[in-house]
Amino acid sequence: MELGLVGLGKMGGNMRERIRRGGHTVIGYDRNPDIADVGSLEELVGSLSGPRVVWVMVPSGAATQSTVDELAELLSPGDLVVDGGNSRWTDDEKHAEELKAKGIGFVDCGVSGGVWGLENGYALMYGGSAEDVAKVQPVFDALKPEGKFGSVHAGKVGAGHFAKMVHNGIEYAMMQSFAEGWELLESADSVTDVREVFRSWQEGTVIRSWLLDLAVKALDSDEHLEALRGYAADSGEGRWTVEAAIDNAVPLPAITASLFARFSSRQDDSPQMKMIAALRNQFGGHAVTAADKVGEMGADAPGADVTPPTGG
Amino acid sequence: MELGLVGLGKMGGNMRERIRRGGHTVIGYDRNPDIADVGSLEELVGSLSGPRVVWVMVPSGAATQSTVDELAELLSPGDLVVDGGNSRWTDDEKHAEELKAKGIGFVDCGVSGGVWGLENGYALMYGGSAEDVAKVQPVFDALKPEGKFGSVHAGKVGAGHFAKMVHNGIEYAMMQSFAEGWELLESADSVTDVREVFRSWQEGTVIRSWLLDLAVKALDSDEHLEALRGYAADSGEGRWTVEAAIDNAVPLPAITASLFARFSSRQDDSPQMKMIAALRNQFGGHAVTAADKVGEMGADAPGADVTPPTGG
Amino acid sequence: MELGLVGLGKMGGNMRERIRRGGHTVIGYDRNPDIADVGSLEELVGSLSGPRVVWVMVPSGAATQSTVDELAELLSPGDLVVDGGNSRWTDDEKHAEELKAKGIGFVDCGVSGGVWGLENGYALMYGGSAEDVAKVQPVFDALKPEGKFGSVHAGKVGAGHFAKMVHNGIEYAMMQSFAEGWELLESADSVTDVREVFRSWQEGTVIRSWLLDLAVKALDSDEHLEALRGYAADSGEGRWTVEAAIDNAVPLPAITASLFARFSSRQDDSPQMKMIAALRNQFGGHAVTAADKVGEMGADAPGADVTPPTGG
Amino acid sequence: MELGLVGLGKMGGNMRERIRRGGHTVIGYDRNPDIADVGSLEELVGSLSGPRVVWVMVPSGAATQSTVDELAELLSPGDLVVDGGNSRWTDDEKHAEELKAKGIGFVDCGVSGGVWGLENGYALMYGGSAEDVAKVQPVFDALKPEGKFGSVHAGKVGAGHFAKMVHNGIEYAMMQSFAEGWELLESADSVTDVREVFRSWQEGTVIRSWLLDLAVKALDSDEHLEALRGYAADSGEGRWTVEAAIDNAVPLPAITASLFARFSSRQDDSPQMKMIAALRNQFGGHAVTAADKVGEMGADAPGADVTPPTGG
Repeated sequence: MELGLVGLGKMGGNMRERIRRGGHTVIGYDRNPDIADVGSLEELVGSLSGPRVVWVMVPSGAATQSTVDELAELLSPGDLVVDGGNSRWTDDEKHAEELKAKGIGFVDCGVSGGVWGLENGYALMYGGSAEDVAKVQPVFDALKPEGKFGSVHAGKVGAGHFAKMVHNGIEYAMMQSFAEGWELLESADSVTDVREVFRSWQEGTVIRSWLLDLAVKALDSDEHLEALRGYAADSGEGRWTVEAAIDNAVPLPAITASLFARFSSRQDDSPQMKMIAALRNQFGGHAVTAADKVGEMGADAPGADVTPPTGG
Repeated sequence: MELGLVGLGKMGGNMRERIRRGGHTVIGYDRNPDIADVGSLEELVGSLSGPRVVWVMVPSGAATQSTVDELAELLSPGDLVVDGGNSRWTDDEKHAEELKAKGIGFVDCGVSGGVWGLENGYALMYGGSAEDVAKVQPVFDALKPEGKFGSVHAGKVGAGHFAKMVHNGIEYAMMQSFAEGWELLESADSVTDVREVFRSWQEGTVIRSWLLDLAVKALDSDEHLEALRGYAADSGEGRWTVEAAIDNAVPLPAITASLFARFSSRQDDSPQMKMIAALRNQFGGHAVTAADKVGEMGADAPGADVTPPTGG
Repeated sequence: MELGLVGLGKMGGNMRERIRRGGHTVIGYDRNPDIADVGSLEELVGSLSGPRVVWVMVPSGAATQSTVDELAELLSPGDLVVDGGNSRWTDDEKHAEELKAKGIGFVDCGVSGGVWGLENGYALMYGGSAEDVAKVQPVFDALKPEGKFGSVHAGKVGAGHFAKMVHNGIEYAMMQSFAEGWELLESADSVTDVREVFRSWQEGTVIRSWLLDLAVKALDSDEHLEALRGYAADSGEGRWTVEAAIDNAVPLPAITASLFARFSSRQDDSPQMKMIAALRNQFGGHAVTAADKVGEMGADAPGADVTPPTGG
Repeated sequence: MELGLVGLGKMGGNMRERIRRGGHTVIGYDRNPDIADVGSLEELVGSLSGPRVVWVMVPSGAATQSTVDELAELLSPGDLVVDGGNSRWTDDEKHAEELKAKGIGFVDCGVSGGVWGLENGYALMYGGSAEDVAKVQPVFDALKPEGKFGSVHAGKVGAGHFAKMVHNGIEYAMMQSFAEGWELLESADSVTDVREVFRSWQEGTVIRSWLLDLAVKALDSDEHLEALRGYAADSGEGRWTVEAAIDNAVPLPAITASLFARFSSRQDDSPQMKMIAALRNQFGGHAVTAADKVGEMGADAPGADVTPPTGG
């Protein structure tokens, strides 16, 4: 089939390539003329024969919104827009409404795969009517991994991004699981080769997984991760996962802990721990600033909230 | 080689079978005469030619301790004891000392594999001196999975059980990750087929893993898990993981949250939430007992800590 | 001064009384004619001499919005609206804009005090311009407690509700702190009188507080809280606190844990723990449904992820 | 009455003074001769007339153990030892057994009060038999605050330290509650005077408490706590609280979060977050080391696990 693809960055560029390998025609547009097939969105739409399918692969929020707005003007009734970016699921219903008023269909699609997607395929989760999904199914089939799994029609409009968001929430907590375990092993006197422990876990264990394989790869290039700072960005999807849980009164302790750990990792100093230090100083006369002089549990360990004397 | 194996339950029985398939001689003892090869521990020791290797596969704590005590009396200098049970790593040093006083070696070995181990092999993490480990290496090689991975000499005495303990801590948090994600998906209006979303994740995603495969199997037999109670036991190893983290001042929020979720799952009613209800009643006059009449956020939602009036 | 008060429920009715005791004139309107001073919002506005101050004390969300909409039509330039309900701080800016277009001022005010406010005074946190705040200051002074503290001009429009929201977030976590401590004490064999421990803490300790006093009162009427279910509603403000933290990348582990504990308390059974049970069953053959037969750590304790045999 | 007091440090010295003000005779011993009344433990015991009561106020663990050991040799049947230090409750039973073998009684006593205790009194929680407690009651009465509350016979031997430990656990979580709220308020654009918000909360609110008063004092000396590092020591009691909870299968999410926040505050860099960064790099090609160049959500925000292109 024929597909218009808007956004040819790290993800979109590779997706164009994989769809073409699947035997389809892709006309790609990007603001960067060096990588674009056409010079404008108008030209993109004009070069597709109807009914058209245009896949939007641009940053969520303002960029996606303006692209949808433009497409609503340029496309014709019976055409279809797919939002394959990382939009918040709450945006999907709005985009669907806006396009429906013009007779244009809408499918949202969460895409996972990163830099591995071109060769291994992209995991796809999409939402929309069966009719709309059918129009883009050949492209889904080209993008997905070759095996039995890797793509799903998750439900109504919004379900694709919701499912992808939850995937990322799970991913956060799984990464945190391995990270906590790694730090604990590294802290143990008896364990002399943490990397080999991780390596061994790749077979026969309950925790074998792709993330474990990646952890081993990372440790192979830097056994104690000394070249890295313990600093982790977070994508909007982790935040949205927690917000969706709050909306639905679902307790999400492990995923939320993982998100908060990332927040903390980005603070040079922790305001809340300054307050803890200040309070300890107020009631206990605990030394608070000479932090460089204290040991494991602080200057007043053990049992220091009422600091015991040096007696006996 | 020749191995004495003490404890032929669900794990030990299968391990005997797998070691024998590996071409070794196993003489097994169990209190249950129907499954034992010999009638007593004395007989077991007597039927092995020295230097002997005896693998202990009995419940951690008192049963393991008494078995080690007996073996310390029965074995000879140069013999070796392997503790393959789920002992706490802090027991290993004690057992090693006790046996060393008699000239007997000691290796601790954490074993993962459950009911799948007989066919797929057992993941093994062991600790001890290189010399002691070498004596039992052929058995490790018979038990482990066939691939490149699945067994590791993790470090000194205690390192095997420590590594296995951390494996289980990671496992707790990974299970919790999927469980939270599943509950959130089930709570979403737009997602109409949660099981198919999970199934699709088995390829191309960041979270593909053996636990995900198992989740799909579970959902295939009971799509909404309606036959189960939300009740989860915990093994000692989850608890020990958190205690080890506390000893080493390692923050472990996701693993600990997973442990606490299991604690809560086993309470018919939550004492701490009774106290929350009591306090709300004290300061706000909130209804506390007519819980069956309240909705999502309770009778006084929204914004109920200072209950707004019915005005306007 | 003269005040119009919309909403005469549990909070508004008592506030009317306290403002009147402060020597001011209050004309109250409520949909319930039995408690209202006037029959309609129009009548309320008509009976105030300008410049008018109208305090809105109705449920947040739709009721507050419609009241603000009506007042925007009824009031005149130079008048002032105070929103004293539990509105989300993000609504305040919208309400201020809407009223400003008509020349009407706006102040948001978070109110704490519950059933104790009439006698002890209400803690007030308000946001808005100095000019607008000055217009309602006499009413704030009448409502607040008699001591030096209890009211604050927290900042711009929205700051009052934001501060009140954070107050409630802190409150959640403080309640949870006492609740956790109480459950732990109740679980200890050695502690024979938990209530007296709580009572004793009311002097000389670091944790003495009004919430502790309330806990003692609650225990005095029901020593083990046996008449209560461990079920806790949550107001919107706890949820909004966590959402605000996510917006600002502030880690909030204790407050969020308190919110999630309330979510869990309202579930008859936990979906996520069903998934944990299902996974345990898949990999370990753990019994999952015969939960009534298991003890503290479950049937397979200790160390049950690889269930040890009964051997030795 | 007459009391021997071992340990005259920051706590013990002030306690000696307060007990003397209560009209009792205190003979104090400390390793530091400048502050001691007698030159040795033998001299201390010799100068007391029987039946003797000796209060031990030295660091928990080895120092307390050796003092108890020495007193077991020096004292006579019918004498009594009080451990007023921050011993772990699990030590109490052992000390009681050891002394009982010599006919010597034992009472454990948790003491709260810090630098404020001399003037305001010390909160006391003690455990032991009614007979033993009666022997030291006059000293308890002298030490406690003057009001109705502040001391409690919590239960059997160990109950005093257990109750004090839980007090400290609650204290951790209450401090964390205020700290989280403070950081969130400081992060809000609309709130222009966080210190005044905290000050106002001291009356009329649900969260009024001594810790809040201390927070206001701290902010009065350093409005944004700029002179402090966000670094907090922890006493053994916070750790023991979590361990006791694990022993009793009590979920303790807020208290544990507070403990972990302290652990994290003492890490120059977080090993676990290095692993998170490493994993993100592996699957997404996320920049990990150029952390100084990234903004709020990192270089790849928004929605960065599948980094969107620069398109449209």
